Amino acid sequence: MVNIKLTIAYDGTEFAGYQRQGQGERTVQGELEKALRRLTGTVPKLIAAGRTDAGVHAKGQVVNFTTDSPIPFDRWPAALNSCLPPDLIVWQAEEVPLSFHARYGAKRKTYRYLVSRRRWPDPFLRRYSYHFPWPLKLEPVRTAAAYLLGEHDFKGFSAAGSAVATTVRRLDKVEVTEEGEEICFTLTGNGFLYKMVRNIVGTLLFIGEGKADPLLVREILATGNRQAAGPTAPPHGLTLMTVEY
Amino acid sequence: MVNIKLTIAYDGTEFAGYQRQGQGERTVQGELEKALRRLTGTVPKLIAAGRTDAGVHAKGQVVNFTTDSPIPFDRWPAALNSCLPPDLIVWQAEEVPLSFHARYGAKRKTYRYLVSRRRWPDPFLRRYSYHFPWPLKLEPVRTAAAYLLGEHDFKGFSAAGSAVATTVRRLDKVEVTEEGEEICFTLTGNGFLYKMVRNIVGTLLFIGEGKADPLLVREILATGNRQAAGPTAPPHGLTLMTVEY
Repeated sequence: MVNIKLTIAYDGTEFAGYQRQGQGERTVQGELEKALRRLTGTVPKLIAAGRTDAGVHAKGQVVNFTTDSPIPFDRWPAALNSCLPPDLIVWQAEEVPLSFHARYGAKRKTYRYLVSRRRWPDPFLRRYSYHFPWPLKLEPVRTAAAYLLGEHDFKGFSAAGSAVATTVRRLDKVEVTEEGEEICFTLTGNGFLYKMVRNIVGTLLFIGEGKADPLLVREILATGNRQAAGPTAPPHGLTLMTVEY
Repeated sequence: MVNIKLTIAYDGTEFAGYQRQGQGERTVQGELEKALRRLTGTVPKLIAAGRTDAGVHAKGQVVNFTTDSPIPFDRWPAALNSCLPPDLIVWQAEEVPLSFHARYGAKRKTYRYLVSRRRWPDPFLRRYSYHFPWPLKLEPVRTAAAYLLGEHDFKGFSAAGSAVATTVRRLDKVEVTEEGEEICFTLTGNGFLYKMVRNIVGTLLFIGEGKADPLLVREILATGNRQAAGPTAPPHGLTLMTVEY
């Protein structure tokens, strides 16, 4: 028995998220399981670093599974890619200790959120960015972003109803960069609550529009009050970039 | 009566090319005509700078039409975009002299062709680049590209059967740049024959693979012999970038 770690990428546009759903929804897990069944005859239990939502993309998602298959670890990408659809690809496979767990072992993750400020939505970015043509000031966005750094209770930035032991997380990086007419939010942290990135980006944009003061971020962190937060930014601007172990 | 010049962009993936076809094929012209009919009640004659093939993209295609519509020229983008699908957008509209003709008036066009050299096809580039994971030397590609500069008879790089008065064209730029794991071919010229860019790129890749000497380009230009040319590169790597008047 070996434990195989895969680094995968997918265009989330046509997936109903990472996790297998009930009735006939197309998911990343479902496509991986189909490919594994074709290659090995069985479906191993797949563990993913982060279960991305419908429409969310990944460039460096990590999954692992244990198998008795005789396929050498470095042949897994070619074998799986030959069975996978074009919007899902395996970049890399590694053999890891049996104790490796893609989800519990993840030390840090980096997400990117792309916002397009063009007057009209760019047909080439429409699947990968949130079109936001409204006036936006970046200085208050950056001030607010800095308040998020470090260890905080991010309860106010998580979606209601998510059952986790603690809502305390640490953010090591919240970067706001301009790339032509796009704005890129890059967040690195030791863990992310459900919809946390999209709630943070939605709130930062709300502040950038002048609808709230940067101090709103401090208030949400202090009170855990979801009501005060800006709207949740849509899923298609979000990409899981890397997972560190 | 006014003459309106539109600068448009489209993701060519789900279009059967620019030009309206016979029976129910989805084309850029067809979608523009539908939008114009909704706005004006009639379908003006549309003239495009270049009639791109199925799968080919555009970031700066130019079309023009004459109309009696009272819509002010600067309101055309908003009006049309409200009726157009998300993979087709109008960036800009200008009122131009009645003598302006998007096709005959074009002085120079720039095309870009993107080649991805990654081991596995990137799900995010699959619609916009030609996946070419084979070994490739760029020095002979650049040597061969330089032979294409200037005025030549490009008959050997055009698709058989295209009826044009002359096959002589002038190329002002044939640039080969590396962008990470992608290679970008940028071609600017006073005109392009049918499939000329894709035949040039196919031949340059053929040379980069070591399957022919850079002098092959000179031979094809001198003899007009299509047989000697490399394979035609696929349409989805190609984008019409700008048209100059």
